[in-house]
Amino acid sequence: MSKIKRILIANRGEIALRIIRACKELGIKTVAVFSDVDEDGVWVQKADNSYAISGDPLEAYLNYKNLINIAMRTRCDAIHPGYGFLSESAEFARACEENDIIFIGPKAEHIALFGDKMASKTAVKKVGVPILEGTVEPVSDAKEGERIASEIGFPVIIKAAFGGGGRGMRIVYKAGEFQEFFESATNEAIKYFGKGEVFIEKYVQNPRHIEVQIVADKYGNVVHLGERDCSIQRRHQKVIEIAPSPRLNDATRKKLCETAVNAVKEIGYENVGTVEFLVDENDDFYFIEMNTRVQVEHPVTEIISGIDIIQRMIEIAGGDKLKYKQEEIVIRGYSIEFRINAENPQNNFMPAVGKITNYMAPGGPGVRLDTSVYAGYTIPPNYDSMVGKLIVYALEWDGVVRKGLRALDEFFIDGVVTNIPLHKAIITEKDFKEGKFNTSYLDEKLPTFDFDEYKSTRSIVDKSFILKGSDDLLY
Amino acid sequence: MSKIKRILIANRGEIALRIIRACKELGIKTVAVFSDVDEDGVWVQKADNSYAISGDPLEAYLNYKNLINIAMRTRCDAIHPGYGFLSESAEFARACEENDIIFIGPKAEHIALFGDKMASKTAVKKVGVPILEGTVEPVSDAKEGERIASEIGFPVIIKAAFGGGGRGMRIVYKAGEFQEFFESATNEAIKYFGKGEVFIEKYVQNPRHIEVQIVADKYGNVVHLGERDCSIQRRHQKVIEIAPSPRLNDATRKKLCETAVNAVKEIGYENVGTVEFLVDENDDFYFIEMNTRVQVEHPVTEIISGIDIIQRMIEIAGGDKLKYKQEEIVIRGYSIEFRINAENPQNNFMPAVGKITNYMAPGGPGVRLDTSVYAGYTIPPNYDSMVGKLIVYALEWDGVVRKGLRALDEFFIDGVVTNIPLHKAIITEKDFKEGKFNTSYLDEKLPTFDFDEYKSTRSIVDKSFILKGSDDLLY
Repeated sequence: MSKIKRILIANRGEIALRIIRACKELGIKTVAVFSDVDEDGVWVQKADNSYAISGDPLEAYLNYKNLINIAMRTRCDAIHPGYGFLSESAEFARACEENDIIFIGPKAEHIALFGDKMASKTAVKKVGVPILEGTVEPVSDAKEGERIASEIGFPVIIKAAFGGGGRGMRIVYKAGEFQEFFESATNEAIKYFGKGEVFIEKYVQNPRHIEVQIVADKYGNVVHLGERDCSIQRRHQKVIEIAPSPRLNDATRKKLCETAVNAVKEIGYENVGTVEFLVDENDDFYFIEMNTRVQVEHPVTEIISGIDIIQRMIEIAGGDKLKYKQEEIVIRGYSIEFRINAENPQNNFMPAVGKITNYMAPGGPGVRLDTSVYAGYTIPPNYDSMVGKLIVYALEWDGVVRKGLRALDEFFIDGVVTNIPLHKAIITEKDFKEGKFNTSYLDEKLPTFDFDEYKSTRSIVDKSFILKGSDDLLY
Repeated sequence: MSKIKRILIANRGEIALRIIRACKELGIKTVAVFSDVDEDGVWVQKADNSYAISGDPLEAYLNYKNLINIAMRTRCDAIHPGYGFLSESAEFARACEENDIIFIGPKAEHIALFGDKMASKTAVKKVGVPILEGTVEPVSDAKEGERIASEIGFPVIIKAAFGGGGRGMRIVYKAGEFQEFFESATNEAIKYFGKGEVFIEKYVQNPRHIEVQIVADKYGNVVHLGERDCSIQRRHQKVIEIAPSPRLNDATRKKLCETAVNAVKEIGYENVGTVEFLVDENDDFYFIEMNTRVQVEHPVTEIISGIDIIQRMIEIAGGDKLKYKQEEIVIRGYSIEFRINAENPQNNFMPAVGKITNYMAPGGPGVRLDTSVYAGYTIPPNYDSMVGKLIVYALEWDGVVRKGLRALDEFFIDGVVTNIPLHKAIITEKDFKEGKFNTSYLDEKLPTFDFDEYKSTRSIVDKSFILKGSDDLLY
């Protein structure tokens, strides 16, 4: 059993509640914190004790000296940072260590390493992970550019070094075209930005965002829990996450997972982490970044693997050995997570927080809900607009898609506007249902969605559907 | 795909909602019914349409002619009976057939067969299932009794034919003791009931109640989905159900499941069913009865197998072939179901229905909730007192026990008294945690439980646990 006895949770909302649940099941006490606007949060009420952190509502969760102070005063032996806030602060991890508090996450040096884009690329390349090659310095000579492009391998993208918005940008598919496109790109860059220098980078066409969940203990044991497909994004924000990826072939899956495990092993990384890749149409993959914390989308992996990721984080941080060997981990079925946000898809996804007046959650088979809201709760405007995460499960891909629609359809939230209609539009769309999507999916489909069609979750007080007397011949 | 397009649900409460969910995922329309006291039921609101059935609130769900009439008027091609009410009425199944409505369940002849205790014992014995042997006629001769007892095999139980309450009852462990106990039993029977005749039956010591879930299509394909342990009972009512059984050895499990599959195949039974056994301390097992409907406890099997039992019922009734071969069915982890009843464990389990004033359901990883109640709902007094079913899941037995406590602890229901304290008492009790229990468990443990200890689910408005100022040195 882990030596950790009491954990301070340096977070709020659904992830704070998620951590409390994991701790309760492990018999570990919890101390929650809450800002001036968060006193009504469920996590405040479900922790063994809770502690007010006053001042600016956002800063309160970032003031790590104060949080460490509270942890010490309440005799916590560890801090769980959740995601966001201080979860990827090497400084915070180091400060915990200096105060003899276990930081539930990787070592500070690895947080720092993977927080640095360039350094992390270099580090993983060294241990055999394919990266998206590119120039570090701007290029102005066409010959030099062609040499670099040939090294990287086509297609490449030429991008104005001092510009943006697509100007001075060219995608080059083969060597013979390079000189011509380089010239037109630099000319356009000079015209718009006054400077012709460009960067050259590997170009990935219609990539899927696929990430591998890693669990590693302090003794060099590393396993993966399969991959997640997070290609459904809006403005680089994940909207829907899926495990396993519905259209990844088994050979690529195996290679991807083994590459991630090997890299983590070589680097000596510990605790949980996610290695993110872009996978192109030929199933070649490229490292993008590594996330050194638990991710919002961890539930889909928990469901298909049966393994509680938060509990493993705590055990590993407390010095326990990994519980499972790779061959003991069985992936079964499909899981989809929908991020339910209080935002209006019909008004450019503007946040639409406020008081939840009426609420009925979906339930029954294959439905998991991670949320900290309830009827009567007012979502404060100070944080992100996530209301909760609806996660569904079924043995087959088509089954999980149909379950997703059923569960979304049951979810009744009144008082705030949510993006449930967006999720319903996606999950009933043909390409999505066939598993055909990449990171461009949402940009392409968004204009075609008619959200009005998907707004009709029925209220409990609606009686219009009750048949009486002669109505019954309606069919 | 199943030919069924619209289903009338001849039931109420959580099972009606459960069937609606299954139908939605299959793209099948639903018509719900509701009695005069049931208009506010969630299932009424979640069905595509709902139909009032007036008159006596209990009779309304039993009036099968009216239900068939509604099914015909609303153009339903099938009826799902759920459990209880008309689910084991061969007459109802036959009436459906006569009116060209598909009864979602087995053939009427098999409902009739398994509704008859004696006939079903004879039928399954013929196909190789061990039964609890016993005399059909009363015995008055000791020699004759000993011959029968030797045939049945010891231990046997001698019971007064015209009595009860333990009088004239003897358990005989070996042949040498038979004569003596027979005489004392008959003497006691004469003394108390005026007649000395007795029955002799196989006696099962400290049995576990273990049942096998069967799925069979119309084409002779039969699979099992593993077993459930339903030994935790109060007055022969199941209280907690578990899958798989935590202390059944694999050889017995295999034999039990194969025996059940084989019997069902031989008899030509179709749709889903449960073969119930008593398993003794030597792992010998005996058929008790077969349930020819979906059972209250089906969710634990759904979770460990990943298979939706209600959906398979509908598909099979519609003529589909079984989707899975036995070897494709993978059992993973452990699941426990707690029947949450509105009854008072501190007042002899008297029903305590009424209005739910405040309500917060458990959630997060490994928690499934099948319920049709909500904040503001009044549980009518006309039916059983079940509020819902809380089902938890984890990979390991100790994990699922701890998850059960966590989820029960989160379940906040105000306005009605529930048996949640009973569940908490059981799940924290040493023998239960070690998987050591049989059908006598609850009778033995009940007097030792202190329910006051388990009453403390915290309300959302409780602020007593918040630390402020100097409180924080409390630890």
